[in-house]
Amino acid sequence: MDLAKSIRDIPDFPQKGVLFRDITTLLKDPDALHEAVDQIVAQLKDLDIDYIVGPESRGFIFGVPVAYALRKGFIPIRKPGKLPCKVVSQSYDLEYGSNVLEMHEDAIKPGDKVAVVDDLIATGGTSKAICELIEKVGGEVVSMNFVIELKDLNGREILKDYKVESLIAY
Amino acid sequence: MDLAKSIRDIPDFPQKGVLFRDITTLLKDPDALHEAVDQIVAQLKDLDIDYIVGPESRGFIFGVPVAYALRKGFIPIRKPGKLPCKVVSQSYDLEYGSNVLEMHEDAIKPGDKVAVVDDLIATGGTSKAICELIEKVGGEVVSMNFVIELKDLNGREILKDYKVESLIAY
Repeated sequence: MDLAKSIRDIPDFPQKGVLFRDITTLLKDPDALHEAVDQIVAQLKDLDIDYIVGPESRGFIFGVPVAYALRKGFIPIRKPGKLPCKVVSQSYDLEYGSNVLEMHEDAIKPGDKVAVVDDLIATGGTSKAICELIEKVGGEVVSMNFVIELKDLNGREILKDYKVESLIAY
Repeated sequence: MDLAKSIRDIPDFPQKGVLFRDITTLLKDPDALHEAVDQIVAQLKDLDIDYIVGPESRGFIFGVPVAYALRKGFIPIRKPGKLPCKVVSQSYDLEYGSNVLEMHEDAIKPGDKVAVVDDLIATGGTSKAICELIEKVGGEVVSMNFVIELKDLNGREILKDYKVESLIAY
C-alpha cells in the first residue's frame, strides 16, 4: 500500500509558500491508518524498548496505537501547564521565538529505553528537544519514528546521533 | 482489572479545590492502556459505526487506538487554525469565556454514523459542542465513550439524547 497516496497536499498553509502535508485523509482511511501504525510497529518490534513517547498533539495520534499494538506503555510530552505533577522542561527555538515542552519527572527513570513516535520530522528542532527531555531524566532514545519526513529541511542532521526512520519521505 | 487503580489523584490542579484525575499513570502501564482501549472497543464493536471522532488532544490518546483496533477511520476535532482545509466550527461556553472547536467540513458526509471517544466527561459542554459539530454536517452520533466520568458534574443530563458510556466513574 502506497501511504503517500493517503496524504493530501494543501498549498500555502499555514502561510504562503508552504506546502502542508495533511494527514487527516490518511487517518480517515481505515486501511491507511492501520498500515501506517503497523509499519511503525514493524520498525520497532525487535528493539528493546520500555516505552513509547509522543509529543502533544499529533504525536499522540500515532504514538498511542503503536504503544497499544506493541503492548508498551505510552508517555506523553505536553505543552506547558498541562501535566499535573512535577515536570522537567526543555525549551527550543522556532523561526520566530521559542517553545517549551514538558514531561513528568517520574515518567522515565535512568536506564529506561524509549522510542519517540511523531507525525512529522521537518527541521528536527522539536525532536531534538524531546530527546534532551528524555535524556535529562536518564532515559535512552533507542529510535525515532516519523510518519512523514521533509527531506529538504534536513532534520536527520540535527538528529545524527539517533536512529531515525520515516514512512513517507518528500 | 480495576482501571481506577491506574488513575493518579492530584489535589488542587489546575486550581485549588479541584481533584485532578491524572491518566498518565494509566497510559504508562501497558496492561491498563490495553485494557482501557479494549473495554471501549467492546462497547462499540456491535454498533454500526463509520468513524471514530476524537477531540484534541486527549481525545486523540484513546480515539486513535480504538479506531485502529476496530479498523475504522479516525476524524480529529481540533482547536481553531490547526486544520488546513475548509472547516465547520462550534463555540461553547466555559466557566469564564468560551472556546471554539473545528472539524474539516468534508470529514463527515450526511448519514455517516460516528462514535465520539474522549478521556473525560465533566459538565458535558465540550462533548455537546462536538455532537453539534458532527450534526452540522449531517453526521449521526451513535455513541459517546469516555474513560473517566465525573458524575457530580452531571454531564449525562446535557447529553441525554445520546448513548453515553464510561469506564471509570467517580
